[in-house]
Amino acid sequence: MKGHGGNIYDFTRPDDIIDFSSNINQYGPPKHALEAAADALSLVRRYPDTNQREVREAFSGWLGRPPGEIVFAGGASDLFSAIMTALRPRRVMVIQPTFADYAICARRCDIPVVPVPTSPHDNFAFPMEEIEKNFMDGDLFIACQPNNPTGRAWTEAELRSVVGLAQSRGGWLLADECFLNLTYPKAFSCLPFMGGVIVVRAITKDFSAPGLRVGFAISDAGTIKKIREALQPWPLNCVGEAFAVACASSPEPFLEESAQKIASERARLVRGLKTLGYRPYNSSVNFILAESRRVSANELYERLQAKRLLIRRCANFPGLDDSFFRIAVRLPEDNDALLCALADMRPI
Amino acid sequence: MKGHGGNIYDFTRPDDIIDFSSNINQYGPPKHALEAAADALSLVRRYPDTNQREVREAFSGWLGRPPGEIVFAGGASDLFSAIMTALRPRRVMVIQPTFADYAICARRCDIPVVPVPTSPHDNFAFPMEEIEKNFMDGDLFIACQPNNPTGRAWTEAELRSVVGLAQSRGGWLLADECFLNLTYPKAFSCLPFMGGVIVVRAITKDFSAPGLRVGFAISDAGTIKKIREALQPWPLNCVGEAFAVACASSPEPFLEESAQKIASERARLVRGLKTLGYRPYNSSVNFILAESRRVSANELYERLQAKRLLIRRCANFPGLDDSFFRIAVRLPEDNDALLCALADMRPI
Repeated sequence: MKGHGGNIYDFTRPDDIIDFSSNINQYGPPKHALEAAADALSLVRRYPDTNQREVREAFSGWLGRPPGEIVFAGGASDLFSAIMTALRPRRVMVIQPTFADYAICARRCDIPVVPVPTSPHDNFAFPMEEIEKNFMDGDLFIACQPNNPTGRAWTEAELRSVVGLAQSRGGWLLADECFLNLTYPKAFSCLPFMGGVIVVRAITKDFSAPGLRVGFAISDAGTIKKIREALQPWPLNCVGEAFAVACASSPEPFLEESAQKIASERARLVRGLKTLGYRPYNSSVNFILAESRRVSANELYERLQAKRLLIRRCANFPGLDDSFFRIAVRLPEDNDALLCALADMRPI
Repeated sequence: MKGHGGNIYDFTRPDDIIDFSSNINQYGPPKHALEAAADALSLVRRYPDTNQREVREAFSGWLGRPPGEIVFAGGASDLFSAIMTALRPRRVMVIQPTFADYAICARRCDIPVVPVPTSPHDNFAFPMEEIEKNFMDGDLFIACQPNNPTGRAWTEAELRSVVGLAQSRGGWLLADECFLNLTYPKAFSCLPFMGGVIVVRAITKDFSAPGLRVGFAISDAGTIKKIREALQPWPLNCVGEAFAVACASSPEPFLEESAQKIASERARLVRGLKTLGYRPYNSSVNFILAESRRVSANELYERLQAKRLLIRRCANFPGLDDSFFRIAVRLPEDNDALLCALADMRPI
């Protein structure tokens, strides 16, 4: 399987890699959550609770939605398939470029995919008129908030407009908010909307635990019931579940502090990239899409890889080409290493 | 969600329940595997390897099949859906009674389900003539080896016959061997077959870890590739993966010892049930289907539940009614507690 970031396993010594290709919060995981995960190893003999009572309660307290409006699965990716299986939308509308798995899931479910292109020429602005013109009855529109790989956040007005389309045309908005807690200033969340809106989140990025495979969807109780039925009986492992419960007990100070530090490092990386002649796009989150004009992203990738620095080439995002690459905002020392390596490469 | 065993979460003090409703090997989990799982908590920041290299290698060494013929997922239940999505069989044939999720998965994929009834009157023998008559081009036949909830194992001759049908009629045999390692004497495995055969296993029952959600499928490389593509990019969590790798390093002494102890306890439970006037059916594995003639299984369930003993009522298995119940073979002291509780209930 190719086409995702984080593939450090292609390298002989994965532990030595500084991975800028996957966008994980580098300030976690929270210690108390890891301890809860370790304690949960005493429970491996039990099947997880198919009704997910404890974890739903915990997130209900955090998110202010009733437990019956939340369902957990083995990562956000597990939910995208379940949502499409459950809702059977007529078509799936996706921004271009965006996270590739939305379209992959749709095709697997035999649902036609309608791409809505955005362009680097206007900083990947979302084409609201196009969206309104194209949104047909029964469509599922997917908004990655903020969008991966561009880092652009949807405004409240834009999302309200899409919600209006979904509600008036018997369709849905799926808001993928997996990165939302790492935005600063905080991007607008679709959590308060009812009817025709499904929000997906994960503990992957926020709480630095992609290895544990925990994602969740929030919607009205009827839609959540359908999504639950489209998932396997035990989609959540006991270790991930315990970790998630612990994360939900005091999420905000950790997340807010992380997002602030990320914003400060992001600004520093953007300045550095500009100084070195790259073109970084505005981002509100923990990754930056940038354009390399002198050398291809592939050549950049190869040269940085030789220094054990892994970046994400973006040519396999429809709408981008081999001049684009994406880097995660990491800890200050890692970001220094990347900027130094890029500086050493001039002139190529 | 209802309809599965192991639902201890309905009770106020789940830790006090002696759970005879889910069929987990009570002699595990192996200590070294739990230690490996704990160590893996240092890796939660990484995405799991989408290519599953380490765990495929480990199981290749155990099972004698190349890594490319094995794929892992979040439990066997995750694989049933993926297999049906990948193969798109014309129909799914299932024994009646059997594990309910086969039919649930098929219906979710809009695949018609053809039940093949078996009967208590001949000890739930598999009706080979019926199967041959009904197996149509492009069908997927599911054989649970040994069958859940009846505990009856397929013979080598029976499975060879189904494989012959699958191969000659462009169909498939899906052999669910999740319980196979706990049979004694060991039931026949479909692992050596090539072409038209998919074997599914898990670490759930064998290694006493349903909480970690690890299952795997074995088939020819082309079929495995298709199944992989029908799964999400990261179906396996890092803790479950590490646990599984450790289990595969020295599986046989642990499994064989477990299966022998289970067989001895099973014989004792069968004798006890008979003495108390119940009708246990022959089982080759770690659970026993039994019939209660004087009181309904529901009444039995209620009375035992009051003593914190949880059994599996079987009325929701198509083909069984409220006189049937299933019990797991547990540790000697647990089995004693169940037999004592049943003895105390006479005369009702």
